[in-house]
Amino acid sequence: MTVVDPTEWKVVGKSIMRVDGLDKVTGNTVYGSDFDLPGMLVGKILRSPYPHARIVSIDTSAAEALSGVRAVLTGADTLGNTFGFQGVINKQLADKMPLERDKVRFIGDEVAAVAADNEHIALSAVDLIEVEYEELPAVFDPFEARESGAPSIHEGIDRNVVDVFDYGCGDVEQALLEADVVVSGEFYSSPVHPVAMETHQALADWDAGGRLTMYASTQMPFQLRTHLSHVLGLTEGDVKIVKMPTGGGFGGRMEMHPLDPIAALLAKQAGRPVRIQYSREEEFLATRFRHPIHMKLTLGAKADGTMTAFDLDMLLDSGAYVAQASGVARVGSKNAMTLYRVANTRVHSEVAYTNNPYASAYRGYGNPQVNFAHEVLVTALAEKLGIDEIELRIKNGNRPNSESYFGQLIGSCEYEEVLRKGRELSNWDSIHGKKQRAGSKVRGLGMSSCINVGGGARDQGDSDSSGCVIIMQDDGSITANTGGQEIGSGGSTVFAQIVAEEIGVSIDRIHLEQSDTDLMPWDIGAHAQRNVFCAGNAVLTAAREARGVLIEEICRQLECADTDVSLHDNQVFVAGMSEAQATIPEIARNAHFRPGGQLIWGKGFYDPPTVKTDPQGYGNQSAAYSFGAQFAEVEVDLETGHVDVVRLVGTNDVGVAINPAGVEGQIEGGGLQGLGQATTELMHIENGELLNSMMHNYGVPTSLDAPPIVAHIVESSEPAGPFGAKGVGEATVVPTCAAVANAVYDAIGIRITALPLSPESVLDALDALDALDALDAQGELA
Amino acid sequence: MTVVDPTEWKVVGKSIMRVDGLDKVTGNTVYGSDFDLPGMLVGKILRSPYPHARIVSIDTSAAEALSGVRAVLTGADTLGNTFGFQGVINKQLADKMPLERDKVRFIGDEVAAVAADNEHIALSAVDLIEVEYEELPAVFDPFEARESGAPSIHEGIDRNVVDVFDYGCGDVEQALLEADVVVSGEFYSSPVHPVAMETHQALADWDAGGRLTMYASTQMPFQLRTHLSHVLGLTEGDVKIVKMPTGGGFGGRMEMHPLDPIAALLAKQAGRPVRIQYSREEEFLATRFRHPIHMKLTLGAKADGTMTAFDLDMLLDSGAYVAQASGVARVGSKNAMTLYRVANTRVHSEVAYTNNPYASAYRGYGNPQVNFAHEVLVTALAEKLGIDEIELRIKNGNRPNSESYFGQLIGSCEYEEVLRKGRELSNWDSIHGKKQRAGSKVRGLGMSSCINVGGGARDQGDSDSSGCVIIMQDDGSITANTGGQEIGSGGSTVFAQIVAEEIGVSIDRIHLEQSDTDLMPWDIGAHAQRNVFCAGNAVLTAAREARGVLIEEICRQLECADTDVSLHDNQVFVAGMSEAQATIPEIARNAHFRPGGQLIWGKGFYDPPTVKTDPQGYGNQSAAYSFGAQFAEVEVDLETGHVDVVRLVGTNDVGVAINPAGVEGQIEGGGLQGLGQATTELMHIENGELLNSMMHNYGVPTSLDAPPIVAHIVESSEPAGPFGAKGVGEATVVPTCAAVANAVYDAIGIRITALPLSPESVLDALDALDALDALDAQGELA
Repeated sequence: MTVVDPTEWKVVGKSIMRVDGLDKVTGNTVYGSDFDLPGMLVGKILRSPYPHARIVSIDTSAAEALSGVRAVLTGADTLGNTFGFQGVINKQLADKMPLERDKVRFIGDEVAAVAADNEHIALSAVDLIEVEYEELPAVFDPFEARESGAPSIHEGIDRNVVDVFDYGCGDVEQALLEADVVVSGEFYSSPVHPVAMETHQALADWDAGGRLTMYASTQMPFQLRTHLSHVLGLTEGDVKIVKMPTGGGFGGRMEMHPLDPIAALLAKQAGRPVRIQYSREEEFLATRFRHPIHMKLTLGAKADGTMTAFDLDMLLDSGAYVAQASGVARVGSKNAMTLYRVANTRVHSEVAYTNNPYASAYRGYGNPQVNFAHEVLVTALAEKLGIDEIELRIKNGNRPNSESYFGQLIGSCEYEEVLRKGRELSNWDSIHGKKQRAGSKVRGLGMSSCINVGGGARDQGDSDSSGCVIIMQDDGSITANTGGQEIGSGGSTVFAQIVAEEIGVSIDRIHLEQSDTDLMPWDIGAHAQRNVFCAGNAVLTAAREARGVLIEEICRQLECADTDVSLHDNQVFVAGMSEAQATIPEIARNAHFRPGGQLIWGKGFYDPPTVKTDPQGYGNQSAAYSFGAQFAEVEVDLETGHVDVVRLVGTNDVGVAINPAGVEGQIEGGGLQGLGQATTELMHIENGELLNSMMHNYGVPTSLDAPPIVAHIVESSEPAGPFGAKGVGEATVVPTCAAVANAVYDAIGIRITALPLSPESVLDALDALDALDALDAQGELA
Repeated sequence: MTVVDPTEWKVVGKSIMRVDGLDKVTGNTVYGSDFDLPGMLVGKILRSPYPHARIVSIDTSAAEALSGVRAVLTGADTLGNTFGFQGVINKQLADKMPLERDKVRFIGDEVAAVAADNEHIALSAVDLIEVEYEELPAVFDPFEARESGAPSIHEGIDRNVVDVFDYGCGDVEQALLEADVVVSGEFYSSPVHPVAMETHQALADWDAGGRLTMYASTQMPFQLRTHLSHVLGLTEGDVKIVKMPTGGGFGGRMEMHPLDPIAALLAKQAGRPVRIQYSREEEFLATRFRHPIHMKLTLGAKADGTMTAFDLDMLLDSGAYVAQASGVARVGSKNAMTLYRVANTRVHSEVAYTNNPYASAYRGYGNPQVNFAHEVLVTALAEKLGIDEIELRIKNGNRPNSESYFGQLIGSCEYEEVLRKGRELSNWDSIHGKKQRAGSKVRGLGMSSCINVGGGARDQGDSDSSGCVIIMQDDGSITANTGGQEIGSGGSTVFAQIVAEEIGVSIDRIHLEQSDTDLMPWDIGAHAQRNVFCAGNAVLTAAREARGVLIEEICRQLECADTDVSLHDNQVFVAGMSEAQATIPEIARNAHFRPGGQLIWGKGFYDPPTVKTDPQGYGNQSAAYSFGAQFAEVEVDLETGHVDVVRLVGTNDVGVAINPAGVEGQIEGGGLQGLGQATTELMHIENGELLNSMMHNYGVPTSLDAPPIVAHIVESSEPAGPFGAKGVGEATVVPTCAAVANAVYDAIGIRITALPLSPESVLDALDALDALDALDAQGELA
C-alpha cells in the first residue's frame, strides 16, 4: 500500500519540527523528577569509601532511630540475587547485587540505603550508618589485574578475566607473512561519561497486592522489567515500568542500575513510594560510562592496497563489575573487522575486572574505541603504501548487496559516496597534507569512517522486535502507541511521519505515546540505533493494517474500488475525480458512529529477518548496515598543545532520511560528543578514585566549544527499512576520535595513540618529537 | 474457541475478589485528588445566588489584583459555545455554557472562576468578584413553568417545554373502553442525588502545542473528550482524557460538567495546570441528580388478567438546564411500556425547565421513577382483578425468544423464575397480606419487578461500541487495555475473568488497564449497565484473537494439531496426554525470544447488533434484556410513621453471572440505594434553593441503615453475551421504591404515591385514612 515513489511523499523525507520539541524547549515536559507521588519518600544510598574491602559489619541502629527515617536497607535485606545486563544469557555475567553483602569492589559501591521523609533526613541517616570494613589489596590496572597473584576481585574468576573470546576468519599469520606492507600500533581509548542532562532516578511504588510500578527514564523498559523482576524474586507481570521522558540516553539508560531495586526494596519496606534521584556526583560515580580499552592492532596489505590481514588484541578495563563489557568487546571488534573486506582477521579479547568504577554501554558500544585504533592505523597503512587514504578505504570498503566474511548481508551501502562527499565538503585536497601554519598554529585535516548495524542488532536477549498499535480517533487524528522509545533522538517524530505518510493524515494530527509496559506492545528498547528501523517497521506494519480498514470503509462509503483510492492531507481522492471526495475525518466518523460500527485501527509487530551470531561472530545480526565518515580540520597550537577542531564534516549513509533535520541533528550531536572524547573529556580515576565528578572539571563540550559541523546525508534506500530508512544515531560518534587524531598527525606529524588528545598529550608528543629530532640531528638514529 | 460447557469453566462463574479491591480497601488507589502536577493551581467557581437573574455587569478587577491570583474568567472569556450531553444529536438540547454570559437560571449557576496559588487565595478572589444582577421572576413548579405567562427561562423555548414526545402502539383509548378493569393514579418521584463518595474534580493541563490533557474521574472518557473539544473550539484529537479511578459513578459522571471546561480555560489563561475539586456542598448543588417526575398513569386489563392498556402522561422537572432529561424520559417510559406485553400503549412526555438546580442521569435513568408509578399501579390492578399480583405479572411478562411490541428482541428471559424465586425467598405466602402487628408496628411485604436493557443501549451518539487490546507478556501474564471503564461496579474483574477463561491463564496473572483516550481503544463508556456485555464482548474478541496466536505457537512448538490443544491454569494440555505438555509462560517466551519472534496478542472491537430506535420508540436498541424483582418486607410504625425496611430480597436474571459475588454486590448496593430513595433521601429544594447539601442532613443510608439484603441470581444464558452474561447494575435499583410502597400498602392499606415514604408522608396518609375511616364510620362515604 505504501506510496513507493519518493517524489510523491508528502511527509517522509521532509525536515519537520520534532513532535516533542515544543514541550521540551518550553520546559513543559514532565520528567521523572518533576512530579511527586502521594506520601513519597526520599531514598539515599551509602557507598563504599574503599576500592576493595570486606564488609565486616553494618550497624544501622542509629539510622533507624532517627525520626523521619522510614526504611533502612542493607544487603541482608535483599534476596542476594545477582544481576547484570547480559547475565540473562550468561550467568557468569550477573555479578552485581543491589547492595553488596560481603565486600565492596570500588569507591562508590552500594552498601546500604535509607528512605526518609525528606532529603535532609535521608542524608543524615546515611551518615549514621556505621560500616566496619577490612581493607583488601586493590588493583587498578587491567594488565596487572590479570597477572597471577593479583588481588581476586570476584570469587571464582581466574586472573580477574571475566570474558575472553577469540574469533576471526582466514589465516592471519599467513596473511601477515604474505603482506607487502604491515603496520602495527598500540592504542588506548580512555573512559568518558555520557553526561546526560537528566541524572538517574528511580521512583518505586507498590500496590496492595504486591505489584511494583517503577517510573523510569529508561531506554529499555521491557528489559528493565525483566531484570528488576529477577532481582526482586518476581516475574515480569509483577512489575510495571512507566516510561518517563528521557533526558538523554546514550546507552547509559539501557540497563538496570542498583538504585532501581534499591528504590523498590525501600518502598516495599516503608510501604510508601520512594524516589532516589542521583546528584551529578553520583551520576559520574555510580552510573555507566565508556570502557577504557587497550588495543594492539596489526594490519597487513598487498602493495596494490588490498587489505589482507587484521589482527587485534584487546583488553577492556571493565572496572568492578562486568555489566555489558562482553557485548561491548564483541560489537566494537566486529565492526572494525568488517568495516573493510579483509579475508584474514583475528581478534583476541579479554575483559578484566579492576577496582575502578565500572563501565558499560555508551553510544557506539565499543565501536568508537576500536575505530580509533583501526582508522588511525589505516591512515598509517595508506601512508606506508603510498596510496591516497580515501581511495584505499573505498577500495577495501563494503559494497551494496554483498555478504561480508562474517555472514553480514549488506543491502544498501553508499560507503564510497560517503567518503567522496566528505572529501569534497572538507576541502580535503586543498587542506590535507599542506600543514598550513600561522604563528604557533598548524592546520591539519584527518578523516575516519565506520560501519554500524543499522537494521536492528540481535544481540540482546534473543529478540530484536518491536510492536505498535495505531488508532484513528473520531476526528481522523491518530494515536500511535509504540513500544519504540523516544530517548531524545527524535524517534517519535519519525514514527509520526511514517504514520502520516502511510495513512495520508497530516503530521499535526498524529500523537505518539510511549506509556508503560502494561500498555505498550513489547519492544526490546532503544539501543544500537535500531529505533527507526525496527520500531519504525512495527509502526509501518500497524499503519498499513489501519490503512486497510480505512480503505475498506472508503470503498463502502463512497462505493468505489480500493485500487482507485489515494489518501493525502487528510483527504480522500478517487481515481478519475479531480477533487477530494471526502475527508478522512468524515470517513472515520461515519465508520464509527453507525450500527455495526468500525474502529479504524491496526497493530503491528516486527522482528527483523536476522540471526544471533554464533560464537565465532558469524551471522547476519542486523537487517541493514549504516556507513559514515567524519573529516576533522584542526589547528594544533605548538606552544600550548591545544587541539582546536575548527570544522567537522560528517557524512552518513542513513538509507532514506525520514526527517533530514533530525538526521543532521544526530550528525551534529554525535560529532560534538565525539569531539569531547577526542579532545577534552576524561574521567580522571586514580587508585580507583574518580577525581573529577562535576560539570566544571569533567570537560564535556558546551555549545560554545562546538565548531561548525557540516552534516551531510548520503541517501540510499534500504529495501528492508521503513520507507528505505536505516539507523544513524551511533555511527555519528564512532569516527570522530580517529578523524581528529589523523588530523593532528596531518598537522604535526605525530600519531597520538592514547585519548584524549589533550594539550598535555600533544605537548608530551611534541617534546618527544623534538627529542627525536635532536637525536636525529645528532645522527644517533639509524 | 471459547469453552462452551459451563461445567468446565475454571474462572467464569466463580466468585473472586475484585482485581481493584485490595488497593481500594487499603487506601492505596490514587484518585484524581490524590496527586499534584508541577506548578498546579487551585480553581474556584463563583455561582449565582439568585434562581433567575440577568447579569448586568461583572467586575473582576479586585480579584485580578489579588496577589497569587493567576487567572480570572467570566463568560466573556469563553467561546460562548453551548453544550449538553444530548446536544450533539439535538442542538436544542445544548443549552449550557461553562460560565453563563447573560443570565443565570438557578442558585448555583456558574458565573465566574479564578485560579490561584492556593485554595485560600482562590476563595478570597472569588469573593472579590463583583457581579451586578437584575433579578428576574422565577418559577419552580414544572406545571406552573409550562403555563403561558410563566417566566421564560431559555430564549425561544415555548412555555419552557424543552422536549415533548408521544409514542406508543395500538389504540389505547379503545383498549381502555374495552378493558374489564381500569386503574389510574398520579405519582411523584422525588429528586435524589447519587452522593458518590468522590466529589467531582477537574484537572487540566495544556502542552506547549495547545493540546489539552484532562485528568478525569469519568464514566465516559471519549464522550467527555467530544464535549470538551466542542466547547473549547477544538477537535477530539486535541484533547486527551486520562481516566482516573472513579469514586462512584452512578450516572453522575456520564456527562461533562461546567467545571471541566472552566478548569481547562483557567489553565490555558494561567499557563499552568489547574485543578477544581468540589466540596460536598458544591457536589450536591452543582452536579446532577435524579429527575423529579410527575406521572399520571392508567392501566387497563381484561378480567382474565391480560393487560391491554398502558397510558402514561409524564412531566419531568429538568431544572435550569436540560442535560439528559430527554433521554431519561424516553428510557424510563419505554422500560415501563415494555415490562409487560401490552398491545396498546401511549406515552405523552414533557420536559419543563424550572429555576431549580438541574437533574440528569442517575443509575436507572428514568426507569426507577416510572417503575415506581407503574408497579404500584400494577399491584392495585391485581387487587382490583382479584388475581395474585405475582401471577398477574408472570402472565403478562416477557418471555424468552420473543419480540416486544416495540421491536425489542428478547433473547434470554427468566422473568418468571425471577418472580417465583423472589416469592419463595421473601416468604411471600406467609407474610404478604397478613398485616402482622406488634405494638405500634405493622408488617407488610411488597414487590416490584423491572426490565432493563442488558446488552448495550444504542442511545448515545449512534455508537454502542467497545474496544480492547490484549497482550501476553513474556511470563505468560496478560495485560488487557480496555476502553470499558471500571466505575466501581466490578467491570475490570469481570474482564479479567473473561480473559482468564478464554486463554487459560490464572486470574492473578491478568492486569487490567484503563488509561487514556490516546491509548484506550474507543468505548462509548460505562452507562446503561452495558460494561460487562459490550466491553466484555470486546475483551472476549481480543482474547480470542490472542488465543488463536497462542494456539498457533503451541502447535509450532509442540508439533501438535490445534484441535488437540486445551489450556487452563497456565498450562498446555494436548489430547491423549494426561500431563501438561508445557506451560503457557514457556510457550510465550519461546514464541517471543527467537528469530522471527511472535508477540501473543489480539485486539477486539465490538458493536452490538442493534439499531437506534425511531421517533416512535420502535427498534431493538439493546442486544439483550435484563429482568429483576425486589421484595421488601417493612415494619410501619403507626405512631411515628417510620417505615423500617427489615429485609429486602433481590432476584435478578443476569444471564451468566461471571463473578457471582460481584453481582450480589450490585444487588445489595442497588437495593440499598433504592431504599434511600424510597424512605430517607430527598433534595429539599425550596424556591430554587437546596436546603440540605451536607451528608448529615441529606439522608443517604449508611451501612448501619442497611437491612439484611438477600441477593439471588437467577441465571440464564444470553446467547449474545460474553460467556452468556448480560447487564445487571441498573436493574437492581429500579424496583425498590415500588416494592417498598407496595409493602407499606400491604401493611397499612395506604397507597403512598409520592416519594420518599418518609415518616411525615406516612403520618399524613394515616391521618387521612383515619379521617376517611371516621367519615366511613359516620356513614358519610358511599
